[in-house]
Amino acid sequence: MRIAIAQLDYTVGAFDANLALMREAVEKARIQGSDLVVFSELATVGYPPGDLLERRDFVDRNLRQLEHVAGLSDDSLGIVVGYVDRNPTGRGKGLFNSAALCVGGRSVARYHKCLLPSYDVFDEARHFEPGGPARPLLFKGVRLGISVCEDVWSDPDLDGRSIYHRDPVLEQVEAGAQLLINISASPFELGKAAQRRDLVRRYAAQSGRFFVYANQVGGNDELVFDGHSIVVDPTGRVVVRGHDFAEDLLVYDIDLEASDGELGELRPVAESTGEEAVKALELGLGDYAKKTGFGKVLLGLSGGIDSALTAAVAARALGPDRVLGVAMPTRYSSRGSLDDAQALVDNLGIDYRVISIDGIFQAYLDGLAPIFQDCEADVTEENIQARIRCGVLMALSNKFGRLLLTTGNKSELAVGYATLYGDMAGGLAVISDVPKTLVYDIARHLNRERETIPQSIIDKPPSAELRPDQTDQDSLPPYDELDRVVEGYVERNLSVSELAAEGNDRGVVELVVGLIDRSEYKRRQAAPGIKITAKAFGIGRRYPIVADYKGLHG
Amino acid sequence: MRIAIAQLDYTVGAFDANLALMREAVEKARIQGSDLVVFSELATVGYPPGDLLERRDFVDRNLRQLEHVAGLSDDSLGIVVGYVDRNPTGRGKGLFNSAALCVGGRSVARYHKCLLPSYDVFDEARHFEPGGPARPLLFKGVRLGISVCEDVWSDPDLDGRSIYHRDPVLEQVEAGAQLLINISASPFELGKAAQRRDLVRRYAAQSGRFFVYANQVGGNDELVFDGHSIVVDPTGRVVVRGHDFAEDLLVYDIDLEASDGELGELRPVAESTGEEAVKALELGLGDYAKKTGFGKVLLGLSGGIDSALTAAVAARALGPDRVLGVAMPTRYSSRGSLDDAQALVDNLGIDYRVISIDGIFQAYLDGLAPIFQDCEADVTEENIQARIRCGVLMALSNKFGRLLLTTGNKSELAVGYATLYGDMAGGLAVISDVPKTLVYDIARHLNRERETIPQSIIDKPPSAELRPDQTDQDSLPPYDELDRVVEGYVERNLSVSELAAEGNDRGVVELVVGLIDRSEYKRRQAAPGIKITAKAFGIGRRYPIVADYKGLHG
Repeated sequence: MRIAIAQLDYTVGAFDANLALMREAVEKARIQGSDLVVFSELATVGYPPGDLLERRDFVDRNLRQLEHVAGLSDDSLGIVVGYVDRNPTGRGKGLFNSAALCVGGRSVARYHKCLLPSYDVFDEARHFEPGGPARPLLFKGVRLGISVCEDVWSDPDLDGRSIYHRDPVLEQVEAGAQLLINISASPFELGKAAQRRDLVRRYAAQSGRFFVYANQVGGNDELVFDGHSIVVDPTGRVVVRGHDFAEDLLVYDIDLEASDGELGELRPVAESTGEEAVKALELGLGDYAKKTGFGKVLLGLSGGIDSALTAAVAARALGPDRVLGVAMPTRYSSRGSLDDAQALVDNLGIDYRVISIDGIFQAYLDGLAPIFQDCEADVTEENIQARIRCGVLMALSNKFGRLLLTTGNKSELAVGYATLYGDMAGGLAVISDVPKTLVYDIARHLNRERETIPQSIIDKPPSAELRPDQTDQDSLPPYDELDRVVEGYVERNLSVSELAAEGNDRGVVELVVGLIDRSEYKRRQAAPGIKITAKAFGIGRRYPIVADYKGLHG
Repeated sequence: MRIAIAQLDYTVGAFDANLALMREAVEKARIQGSDLVVFSELATVGYPPGDLLERRDFVDRNLRQLEHVAGLSDDSLGIVVGYVDRNPTGRGKGLFNSAALCVGGRSVARYHKCLLPSYDVFDEARHFEPGGPARPLLFKGVRLGISVCEDVWSDPDLDGRSIYHRDPVLEQVEAGAQLLINISASPFELGKAAQRRDLVRRYAAQSGRFFVYANQVGGNDELVFDGHSIVVDPTGRVVVRGHDFAEDLLVYDIDLEASDGELGELRPVAESTGEEAVKALELGLGDYAKKTGFGKVLLGLSGGIDSALTAAVAARALGPDRVLGVAMPTRYSSRGSLDDAQALVDNLGIDYRVISIDGIFQAYLDGLAPIFQDCEADVTEENIQARIRCGVLMALSNKFGRLLLTTGNKSELAVGYATLYGDMAGGLAVISDVPKTLVYDIARHLNRERETIPQSIIDKPPSAELRPDQTDQDSLPPYDELDRVVEGYVERNLSVSELAAEGNDRGVVELVVGLIDRSEYKRRQAAPGIKITAKAFGIGRRYPIVADYKGLHG
């Protein structure tokens, strides 16, 4: 059986454009003599549709889309496609997250996803009813054991426990499935492709079946889908692998009688954390700009490492001619920062403007003088500068239709070392899930072959330059210590005592944890950021603002 | 059996402070000879705790809190209290949303919530495993049929279908429960208290049991809990009712042999939509300020109705001496607006400052002149003014430690008639779930006895005053038409065709729906707002930013 995995980049709700992509994939697969084309989870609507699922018109349109996709099938070429089905029983949630088997121009059979992820960025119990017992669907005499995304994540070995009571893939195997197929929309995080691959390999080897795993690709809001679709043979070997972070059509011949598979094409994929991260950020930014209709972006260039990396990612994702960097010096900006920004711009070949904001800053100080007369200068004056930069950048964004990119990193966002309505402003926070230590790693990765980010930017101590001779380390512990605590507290939910027991300085732990807790109000209004770690700030971390966090750790 | 309902205002994670409240309630109930004190859902932690539930230390602290609360019971006074229990089985989600029965100083029996709301603002399937078959707990020879919040919301008559497969209250009745008790943390929306009351009345009347309904009160982030605890007798009559929007201890004698109950105290509650809304906003704002530790607030006063209402709510919630209004005129501000702001300030007795921002605005125009030289003035210059006001207000907030209140209404937030990092900035958006037409209703409600909001503010046409002679109706349809479309599209998920079929002008529908869709990116960075309708923008409405909304309606 010749299988074609269509690994495509959908825009949520773009029914016509998505259908055109799917039609093209089916035609290519047909030319190559494929028996079955496999699309990813919820391919009729694009994942994740969120509460659009609550709209009847949206679900109707998805059902019409299913008919269109089914219409691409014929008697020799079948299609498996993810879609939203209605639950007709009047009991339970009103929708299923489903896969349809389409043959002869019609949807002929369906499977409803059984395991509905409801953690981190996933809200599937919000919209969907779980499917009943998993049963194979017959196609060309072969019993297909179809499952949808999370259905392969029931392994109790993952965390020492299972949050689920069922294993739909095993149900399929026990019900006689001869070929396993999973359609996914599984978002990227560092290391996740390997984790997914191991799950699929284990099922294939345990069951002695071929396993076809088809994943979505592309950036949608905070999530990047990395593709990385695979076929695993009954020995547990990956026999064909799709691109990471790019569309693909993977064709592979499965001999259902064979005990192992011939080795097909293994596309080259990212080999280091730095490479993986850059590819994810590029795709996330590129798709956000493209799918929101912004052709061009702008960002503030401070001369520091964060804005330098963001600019470099933008130049790679969109091309340097679509990126404008703006330096906005004040009395506190060093000559070196402007030189560094210029060197970066020269390396990247992006557009560049310098706009002094000192006149505006002085106008603020003058306007506020009557009311601030008896007050010492404090963080207020620093924030005013950051907010003026926001005002200038947003004015350029409004006037010239450019998407403003925010440049803050995860370490800063964690501890609130950022100004709300200031440097936190922007349509997309490109590196807000990249810890500062990883920012440097990625910069070094980008510089492997030739200097992209000027070495002087990498070498100098980070500074916000909002008062004379300021450096980040005046207010914060060294970034390697900071990042260890952020990772333990945010990604692993460790307590203060547990963090100290892991060897972190207790004073540093208490300082950092206190800052993280107190910054929740800032993050609630942060720009959406591209998720690359197991726990990003954003839609997947839902902490209250109003809470006695001090009491919690006491 | 003498029942005491403790309707308290918890702060999430404030274990010591919450315990002090609970101790005080138990002591009062004991003095009054109560047999059983009933606290609300998750009273050990305060609702909603969100992803704090993923922290082991948080759950541990909650279990210690349960021990402390249990320690307040003795052999004659029992306690029912909501808490987080662990699921020890290693299968399913790791936690239960539970009620403990405490007697003799210990927790002696427990019930696990069966129906886990996962829609709108609720995420319970994210954290909790549902309980098994509901069974009564024995207390002083009486079989208590305990349920938790959503467990009473299984009625298929509610929406013509049920999203649940079980009815835990009926399970309790069928298992022999003699007295029904529901502990809730059910947030406010307009008209919801009556809906809740009817559910409880129906269960009481159908089963012929007394039904004790204990709700949380207070504001936590976007949610306001209205209290409104009740006891219903076996005829379905409400025999005692607690305060709305205030703490209470409700004591009532239940004769389990009687076929009806004696009428107890019915506290006065809000009688009109306007009154209900004002009480909710006051409590939401007051608790947000108190629980985040801000003693004082500030807001921009434009002379318009939205900032006037916000100021009036703040003055009522916190006292006028804790409220600072700031007018920030430019060349486009009318004399009338400053007069109106002054009249408002005089009526409310709040502090007031006037800070001209024209000098700062001119500095922006000068600074941007080289880059804007060939451009026509457009919305950019309007946004600059709004962002300067944000900068000034945040400077005052930073310098003087005042919480900045945002003053935009729901109609504006819906269609994006607001400036991101401008008038959208602030720690709390007090009226962001109040449609403009309701803003006027509430203002008239406040003016019933004496003029609070100057009549001239109510009478004049709304204007942003960001360019000469501007009024809202230059850009938007009349607010009554706008609000009908917003309500239908946002609260009822109607399609464009359905909205037109309801009698709305199709052109207006298409304009408004298009504006709503395109403003998703702004709302993603909006300040948290106090929810008072069935569907507020905020945590309960999860729409993608990157989506082809145009394609959706085409």
